[in-house]
Amino acid sequence: MRISIIGMGLIGGSMAIDLKKRKFASHLIGVDQNVLHAETALKIGLVDEICTLPEAVRKSELIILAIPANATIQLLPELLDLVDHQVVTDVCSIKKHLCESVKNHPKRERFVAAHPMAGTENSGPWAALPGLFDGKAAIITDAHDSAPDALELVERMYEALYMKLVFMASDQHDIHAAYVSHISHISSFALAITVLEKEKNEKNIFNLASGGFDSTVRLAKSSAEMWSPIFAQNADNVMTVLDAYIDQLQHFKQAMLKNDMNKMTEMIIQANRIKKVLSTSNEKLK
Amino acid sequence: MRISIIGMGLIGGSMAIDLKKRKFASHLIGVDQNVLHAETALKIGLVDEICTLPEAVRKSELIILAIPANATIQLLPELLDLVDHQVVTDVCSIKKHLCESVKNHPKRERFVAAHPMAGTENSGPWAALPGLFDGKAAIITDAHDSAPDALELVERMYEALYMKLVFMASDQHDIHAAYVSHISHISSFALAITVLEKEKNEKNIFNLASGGFDSTVRLAKSSAEMWSPIFAQNADNVMTVLDAYIDQLQHFKQAMLKNDMNKMTEMIIQANRIKKVLSTSNEKLK
Repeated sequence: MRISIIGMGLIGGSMAIDLKKRKFASHLIGVDQNVLHAETALKIGLVDEICTLPEAVRKSELIILAIPANATIQLLPELLDLVDHQVVTDVCSIKKHLCESVKNHPKRERFVAAHPMAGTENSGPWAALPGLFDGKAAIITDAHDSAPDALELVERMYEALYMKLVFMASDQHDIHAAYVSHISHISSFALAITVLEKEKNEKNIFNLASGGFDSTVRLAKSSAEMWSPIFAQNADNVMTVLDAYIDQLQHFKQAMLKNDMNKMTEMIIQANRIKKVLSTSNEKLK
Repeated sequence: MRISIIGMGLIGGSMAIDLKKRKFASHLIGVDQNVLHAETALKIGLVDEICTLPEAVRKSELIILAIPANATIQLLPELLDLVDHQVVTDVCSIKKHLCESVKNHPKRERFVAAHPMAGTENSGPWAALPGLFDGKAAIITDAHDSAPDALELVERMYEALYMKLVFMASDQHDIHAAYVSHISHISSFALAITVLEKEKNEKNIFNLASGGFDSTVRLAKSSAEMWSPIFAQNADNVMTVLDAYIDQLQHFKQAMLKNDMNKMTEMIIQANRIKKVLSTSNEKLK
């Protein structure tokens, strides 16, 4: 199958590697406004050719939009205007506004709204990795608004990426994504800033950084280009979770103020339940 | 050298493995109130024998206290009472109260206050790992309060563990530890609780958890037995950092409330600087 990928970044590039290797794609076309990204993607063999958007649409059966959320919302209607029989899918981390923005588009049913829940903190074609999606969840939202053949094609694509399909409404997706992904990023960005501010006056503070710190600030390396639009478009849900998160932090502070070790212990034991839940969910996804 | 390790947990067990393997220890004695931990440590070969505390002190040249912070504060004076020529060191994550608690002990100079900055979220003798400390920082605090021979012995021990030695005052250690370790744990515990509370009503939320979430909640698996005493004993510093952290989270919320993507982008770019700092500090430690 001839597939175009718009956006030669971490996600688009990683999809390219496995779709080609697993023979789901026979010919891969890359599109990227960023000339360096486009040229690099071709040079390191992620795609077979680089085209303009209209040419890519004409030449493909499946078009994958793998660009930031704001660019996806902007480009999707224009892209659907160009589409005839082709299938269009996206990968972005917000779904409600995106689905609303094309609700009445005459080609809506050629579009399958999707979110493969995988990634790293790195970006650009150089960050592309084989096996990035293996065993992870891919969410398809508002599946009933897509034509059955379009839906089936995207499902087959995610099966080729060894992903587990989960179906839900786009507004539900955005709530869940706020809890299991977006808040993690804010938590990590804020932690990095807190420690960097301190470090202005304490040059050697990072000599002490251990593996635990590395793990909680890993996501703080993620790009603003990707994350600002996500926070902006999912602001209501993210603010709700942020309030709940700040409440929990305040509970810890209160326990410390009162030197209440029983309360601290109780909260930590409650948090420890995450072990059971995470291993259960990993099992389910196998 | 004959070495006793009090506490057959992750840290004590991991030290045992490498000190034996690298021939720094000729004979290793384990002490643990928890009979299961003691028996397990012997059975899986972490130590050569299990003793009572007074017997262990009598038989050793070096005694390593590898128990939680509250137990360390409680046991250290009693342990120093038993000591003659031997050297005692600890591994716990708070230093100011501990050093104050033995400030006037007649055997203070046989004690070297230390904090090897390494670990995982797991605990017990089963969690012990070879190479856990390689390349990480070990902090020795208030070194001038230790006898030169005691200090030199502990320095040689950390060199055998391939750790980079850093020296500072105990109160400075506690401030730095609050920034690069303690706040990461609170951030992670609070995040886990926030998401678990939501999950009470949304059974399948964890189907969506991706690698990013796993990374930020990894530390939430850490034990209350270890962490409650650390938060209690370093409460002032941790609360200061927690306030700064909550401020940063509030800035993100304000930016979302105002739909101010420029501000979000600015904050994320500021957070991204953590990349440079972390790689620099890793370099320094090599």
